[in-house]
Amino acid sequence: MTVPPTHPRYASLLLRERLVNAVEASVATPAGLIAHGRGEAFDYLLGERTHPFAEEAVRAAASLLLRARHPVLSVNGNVCALAMDDVVDVAGACGADIEINLFYWSSRREAAIRSAFASRHPGVVVRGQEGGRIPGLASHRATVDPLGIGDADVVMTPLEDGDRAEALLACGVQVIAIDLNPLSRTARAATVTIVDNIVRALPLLAREVVRQKREGTIDPTGYDNNSVLASAEHTLRAGAVGPEE
Amino acid sequence: MTVPPTHPRYASLLLRERLVNAVEASVATPAGLIAHGRGEAFDYLLGERTHPFAEEAVRAAASLLLRARHPVLSVNGNVCALAMDDVVDVAGACGADIEINLFYWSSRREAAIRSAFASRHPGVVVRGQEGGRIPGLASHRATVDPLGIGDADVVMTPLEDGDRAEALLACGVQVIAIDLNPLSRTARAATVTIVDNIVRALPLLAREVVRQKREGTIDPTGYDNNSVLASAEHTLRAGAVGPEE
Repeated sequence: MTVPPTHPRYASLLLRERLVNAVEASVATPAGLIAHGRGEAFDYLLGERTHPFAEEAVRAAASLLLRARHPVLSVNGNVCALAMDDVVDVAGACGADIEINLFYWSSRREAAIRSAFASRHPGVVVRGQEGGRIPGLASHRATVDPLGIGDADVVMTPLEDGDRAEALLACGVQVIAIDLNPLSRTARAATVTIVDNIVRALPLLAREVVRQKREGTIDPTGYDNNSVLASAEHTLRAGAVGPEE
Repeated sequence: MTVPPTHPRYASLLLRERLVNAVEASVATPAGLIAHGRGEAFDYLLGERTHPFAEEAVRAAASLLLRARHPVLSVNGNVCALAMDDVVDVAGACGADIEINLFYWSSRREAAIRSAFASRHPGVVVRGQEGGRIPGLASHRATVDPLGIGDADVVMTPLEDGDRAEALLACGVQVIAIDLNPLSRTARAATVTIVDNIVRALPLLAREVVRQKREGTIDPTGYDNNSVLASAEHTLRAGAVGPEE
């Protein structure tokens, strides 16, 4: 599939192509493709742009990451396929670990994701799912690196829904979600929820971390995730009618 | 992946499983999985139930099919994976042809869909993409059976977006769409748009065709697709907040 750059849906079609290739490389899964489609629909309803509620969450997320004792960025197949370089940028800017966490885990998939990172970012350490457990979770997502997510006080879990955010919060970990559906369980549970497409949000987050490092972190006490989610839901419901073409 | 029937998202997860299996069988494609995810998101926002605007469209669709000289039900990979039995029911009730029409066409995929139908419905004739063309379409979707879609006056095109509906309408063919996104090009172009999940809409349509055959078809002149689409968009925007669990 070769998409001409003049196609009105070029950006969106390019992301699809990346994900389809990632499934072929065992990085992503068929279920990940369906999840991406759900994200596309929410992004479409949000007008495929970054709204003020996302910018506000990005500022709070940057502050959380910079104030953390041990921040970890959790990476699944879709995150690797869509935003690997941006994850490396954010991790580098705030000194976070990167750790693979897969619902449909296999040694083959973990190796495929490791090798994707190694091919573009040979110096970067990527932790895996071995040796530790998050209590209160039945799926393979519970398995973590005891020196990575197992030791973290702030974890970013992009493109993920389900019960892991709740389980991490129950352990006293603060959670940053990136989720286009403001109604999802992860979005509602997280400490900070960035309702935006990961390919737009992570570059913003990397820049915001760099800015706050230079100018000082913002005070997170004024941040209200429920009000951010309410704005996102309002925009989804009443706002943009599809993307501008 | 085995989903326990007690899971709150059982019905939705079962459809996903069917589609993933369909990709393995070459019936559906990775792009079809992404499209299914988009449908899931719209269905979620509609509360995963059939609304009055969909019932109204189903009545109009049944009337169109019964009044047609030559109705054809177009089938792609996702339709085959999700609703093959229902397509056969509707076709049987209204005397419509069934014809395979694939964007990502290959002889292998067409054969896989034929064999899926043959294994469950051995007596049913399934037309393919050969011998005729719809003018004004660049993709393989333009290729049709000259005695099937090439001769039809009413074509049902479920789970499809793009320019085929417009091209068919330009040839004087009336188009019935089944699309969970009331804003899509197909939804906006079609003569009748059923904004509902195909697995709920097609059984309703089969029953409605049978009812109208018994009691007489409804007069289609009162039907207003724009008003149906406006209701669907309103419900999507302002209505249900996710499915009842």
